[in-house]
Amino acid sequence: MSKNKPLVGIIMGSQSDMPVIHEAAQILEQFEIPFELSIVSAHRTPLRMVEYAQTARKRGLQVIIAGAGGAAHLPGMVASLTSLPVIGVPVKSSNSIDGWDSVLSILQMPSGVPVATVALNGAKNAGILAAQILGSTDKAVAKKLDAYKDELRQKVEEMVEKVES
Amino acid sequence: MSKNKPLVGIIMGSQSDMPVIHEAAQILEQFEIPFELSIVSAHRTPLRMVEYAQTARKRGLQVIIAGAGGAAHLPGMVASLTSLPVIGVPVKSSNSIDGWDSVLSILQMPSGVPVATVALNGAKNAGILAAQILGSTDKAVAKKLDAYKDELRQKVEEMVEKVES
Amino acid sequence: MSKNKPLVGIIMGSQSDMPVIHEAAQILEQFEIPFELSIVSAHRTPLRMVEYAQTARKRGLQVIIAGAGGAAHLPGMVASLTSLPVIGVPVKSSNSIDGWDSVLSILQMPSGVPVATVALNGAKNAGILAAQILGSTDKAVAKKLDAYKDELRQKVEEMVEKVES
Amino acid sequence: MSKNKPLVGIIMGSQSDMPVIHEAAQILEQFEIPFELSIVSAHRTPLRMVEYAQTARKRGLQVIIAGAGGAAHLPGMVASLTSLPVIGVPVKSSNSIDGWDSVLSILQMPSGVPVATVALNGAKNAGILAAQILGSTDKAVAKKLDAYKDELRQKVEEMVEKVES
Amino acid sequence: MSKNKPLVGIIMGSQSDMPVIHEAAQILEQFEIPFELSIVSAHRTPLRMVEYAQTARKRGLQVIIAGAGGAAHLPGMVASLTSLPVIGVPVKSSNSIDGWDSVLSILQMPSGVPVATVALNGAKNAGILAAQILGSTDKAVAKKLDAYKDELRQKVEEMVEKVES
Amino acid sequence: MSKNKPLVGIIMGSQSDMPVIHEAAQILEQFEIPFELSIVSAHRTPLRMVEYAQTARKRGLQVIIAGAGGAAHLPGMVASLTSLPVIGVPVKSSNSIDGWDSVLSILQMPSGVPVATVALNGAKNAGILAAQILGSTDKAVAKKLDAYKDELRQKVEEMVEKVES
Amino acid sequence: MSKNKPLVGIIMGSQSDMPVIHEAAQILEQFEIPFELSIVSAHRTPLRMVEYAQTARKRGLQVIIAGAGGAAHLPGMVASLTSLPVIGVPVKSSNSIDGWDSVLSILQMPSGVPVATVALNGAKNAGILAAQILGSTDKAVAKKLDAYKDELRQKVEEMVEKVES
Amino acid sequence: MSKNKPLVGIIMGSQSDMPVIHEAAQILEQFEIPFELSIVSAHRTPLRMVEYAQTARKRGLQVIIAGAGGAAHLPGMVASLTSLPVIGVPVKSSNSIDGWDSVLSILQMPSGVPVATVALNGAKNAGILAAQILGSTDKAVAKKLDAYKDELRQKVEEMVEKVES
Repeated sequence: MSKNKPLVGIIMGSQSDMPVIHEAAQILEQFEIPFELSIVSAHRTPLRMVEYAQTARKRGLQVIIAGAGGAAHLPGMVASLTSLPVIGVPVKSSNSIDGWDSVLSILQMPSGVPVATVALNGAKNAGILAAQILGSTDKAVAKKLDAYKDELRQKVEEMVEKVES
Repeated sequence: MSKNKPLVGIIMGSQSDMPVIHEAAQILEQFEIPFELSIVSAHRTPLRMVEYAQTARKRGLQVIIAGAGGAAHLPGMVASLTSLPVIGVPVKSSNSIDGWDSVLSILQMPSGVPVATVALNGAKNAGILAAQILGSTDKAVAKKLDAYKDELRQKVEEMVEKVES
Repeated sequence: MSKNKPLVGIIMGSQSDMPVIHEAAQILEQFEIPFELSIVSAHRTPLRMVEYAQTARKRGLQVIIAGAGGAAHLPGMVASLTSLPVIGVPVKSSNSIDGWDSVLSILQMPSGVPVATVALNGAKNAGILAAQILGSTDKAVAKKLDAYKDELRQKVEEMVEKVES
Repeated sequence: MSKNKPLVGIIMGSQSDMPVIHEAAQILEQFEIPFELSIVSAHRTPLRMVEYAQTARKRGLQVIIAGAGGAAHLPGMVASLTSLPVIGVPVKSSNSIDGWDSVLSILQMPSGVPVATVALNGAKNAGILAAQILGSTDKAVAKKLDAYKDELRQKVEEMVEKVES
Repeated sequence: MSKNKPLVGIIMGSQSDMPVIHEAAQILEQFEIPFELSIVSAHRTPLRMVEYAQTARKRGLQVIIAGAGGAAHLPGMVASLTSLPVIGVPVKSSNSIDGWDSVLSILQMPSGVPVATVALNGAKNAGILAAQILGSTDKAVAKKLDAYKDELRQKVEEMVEKVES
Repeated sequence: MSKNKPLVGIIMGSQSDMPVIHEAAQILEQFEIPFELSIVSAHRTPLRMVEYAQTARKRGLQVIIAGAGGAAHLPGMVASLTSLPVIGVPVKSSNSIDGWDSVLSILQMPSGVPVATVALNGAKNAGILAAQILGSTDKAVAKKLDAYKDELRQKVEEMVEKVES
Repeated sequence: MSKNKPLVGIIMGSQSDMPVIHEAAQILEQFEIPFELSIVSAHRTPLRMVEYAQTARKRGLQVIIAGAGGAAHLPGMVASLTSLPVIGVPVKSSNSIDGWDSVLSILQMPSGVPVATVALNGAKNAGILAAQILGSTDKAVAKKLDAYKDELRQKVEEMVEKVES
Repeated sequence: MSKNKPLVGIIMGSQSDMPVIHEAAQILEQFEIPFELSIVSAHRTPLRMVEYAQTARKRGLQVIIAGAGGAAHLPGMVASLTSLPVIGVPVKSSNSIDGWDSVLSILQMPSGVPVATVALNGAKNAGILAAQILGSTDKAVAKKLDAYKDELRQKVEEMVEKVES
């Protein structure tokens, strides 16, 4: 999906999370940040999860985005197995109680093992946050992020004109 | 702590869960069911957790009781790594939001990987449930459980006499 | 519905719970575990409930699965009347407040009378948990459960191939 | 505790509910309405509960007040076994999640079997409601209730004078 | 709508509550208990509410059923103005946050002024509870209630036959 | 408590709300805005409440602050009886479920009858909001409010110096 | 949209809030109160927000209505930048968790900086509240508000006739 | 507090947040990562906040940690004013409803402006996450993080020995 060596790993607990998690990939493509996208289930492929997380840094990843719903253990477990920053996306899956379980089981990590949690179904923001992490030292990415912020502002301003006229 | 080969494995995510989880051990002692008790942290010792769960059945365990608080991943992750029945005890730990995170991140497991969840801080009930699981085929244990139910009833009846007199 | 003497009793509080609870039966059929399926209402047939629970062990049942919604008293009341393990399935029924009432009135049992609670609408997991309870001493069932876990893993791996290619 | 044949039955699931439930008794004493007070545990003495509820009307009771905490099944189960009005008092017991479980497992009864639920720990109001039920046809009780309402008003008015002076 | 002098007053805060509250009227008709049905808005017709509540007992009412949604003040305010028993029906109205506001603003009445609260949208149960209140002294009504309980049981038993066959 | 003709009426449902509601009075004193302070209980003195609200504008009040806890009906009922702006202060009273009932029964007013709700126990902010309402046309009050904002800023800046040094 | 110099500023965080916020404009038009309507995003146009709030009083505004959803910062941030009364409208936007985030992030302002919060999606009430604030000193507006209250009452009374006949 | 040019900016909304937020500083000191620590109030010093955020990158900061309680706008507003990664720490402050407002008003940011949210009161994890962000490109920091993970594991293993012996 992306040509260069991926810097961001995007994983989700189930293929059914794809419609949500896909937005992380889209925004990274827009920022031209190479990424990989796969399915890693904490509960159905726990050993694959262990291997994915343990080899992530060696494989060149700098950030991991992990999305899951319900009793969402993937982001926290990946964070327990790597010292890379892990961004958690709570997904309002079909088996979730209005998203509360997804949010709390990703956000409320114990001391020592953080997960950078974004809003419920906030995969796009997860992608932007990954870019911001890269952009904290990479000036080219930082520039793109500033341009993106500008675009957001301009779109609002165009709406303002329509609404006020 | 128990002389015979343990049938029940009791594990907790942190030593701070001991005051709660200890009650599971106490009731199993009362039922004379051999158990083992240890600390297995999903987030700080993930590989120990993998090994613990994968070897559980071979080591002779028939039930696992796992307690944890906050974003409580231990019970669900153990359940992903063994086909033994896993009883989850949500602990109202100091970092928990009134126990809601502990409850939801244990209870709301995805299809395919159940955790038998008991009440918040319900470690005693976890112990009784473990005994019930053993007692579903072991008549001696079943007899003890029936006797225990009788005791519960008698204690209430004694109270009734006091209250009504 | 199943030919041999049932080992698992599946009951629900209302016929309207059938679309959810049916999944417990389906997975037990898949595991070739004989079961019985019926309606037992705690609030409309309380005496039938008493009789059902009190005779369960004698009739050869080893596990009971009880599903109910709203102020869901069936699983807890059955657990008060038998020392068999009782698995509770909170159902998000039409009269439920987003499932919270169903979950809490099944999960939060007092000390002495546990109910093994699964996720909201998690009847399939209730069936698997029942199999795990049988499988804690029955090697044939344990084998099937391990095979089932394998299947779950393989399905994810097939999806991985599709997603990554 | 009261000399005449009791019209109101006050029961609680556990002796630990006494400090809360006692207030129902106190207000009924104040209204000089004869009552009985006892412990009936849905989960530890289910058959006693069946008998208590089934004989309530014959024994001359006109209202039942039932208090319980956590997965509080007592009020609803009693209501399933008698056609007398049952007032439920959710108790914020030590094993309750801030009272939410107690409230929801009493309030959210299915169609056909109502429980007249009062506020969390609202045993005093349960006693007043019992008096109101009797007072809907008994003029002497109605008079006392009107006098009580007057008293409540007067106490506020006395406070008003203090605050405003 | 009912021929005899009404014993039960059914009021709702808004015409939009009618689809829910109507069920209280239907069940009372089934029990042949005379009632009146009207709209009384706490917030749009507060003086009408005061008058309705203050004259209720004189007009022969023995029970009041009041339904409202959102910040539902009607049941509690009526209860503050009469010593008749008031049954509150929380309505999940379009402006309600999943019914939580309706439930809490009716249930959580302060000491001295109870409202007999039923389940969210539980108007049918409100009607049954009103009948139970009348039936606590009226044998004819009590008989009908026992017959109704029997019917509920029989309907379940018919379903049992279908399901088990 | 204040010499001039009061512009703001501060009322609370119970004397027990005084420790919270008092802060509204204190900040109004600081702004030298004349106010009156009293107890008006929606549930124990409903007719006093009707009179208080109906005469408020005539008596020269320009804003009403009403605080209450639990099923808090005072602010909304006052708003139904006057067209003055009513500020509601949800109080976390002893009978409240963590404040949720107080918040929701004040905030969730139906269309047509607003209550300007402030934070749980936010009586100080209610006083400031009352001043802002007066200050929207009264320049002297507006000036005081701007000075107050300045003070808030300065206090933070002083803290900044301490923390950074 | 309104001819005279606006007295009320209505702003929303996103164009997607328009269907909700529009109702504030409609009711102000009905009251013939001049207003302005625009989009001001706290997160996408923060500097525009600063300028909007800081110049509001100078531009003649007397009240600001600000609506936003999710982590809704607009009302509170505007309130931090002006001493005009700010009315906050929590919007149940598509990215909101059932409205809870919108409500809490607007309502729970810290001491010193109040926001007059109305019900979830309660933009109409925000408009009425703005009119009440103007009407606290403007007799013409007060008269219109009293007439509006009358209308609300009459509409209920018309419904009463239909329902009772 | 730290000698070198700070890479991490730690800010909090109020001095009262210091006991919580201090833990972020402590862990950064342990990792020998230079940081600055200050108070920036979104609601009392909004312009200081604008300046702080807008100059952050130029001043050499690579990550910002922002903690606040109640209607916590600081993290999100800072994120709206810089393209640096912003870590939000929800604080269970005295004016918070059990932390829910703090969590939701930080986590639920709209599309385009992420905040990397950690657990309630999770300032230590915020510090570790900041280190992880730096460590995603800085090998020295990454090494320290891996060593820290090792320490966490070893501490558990020491406890295991004590518990099992």
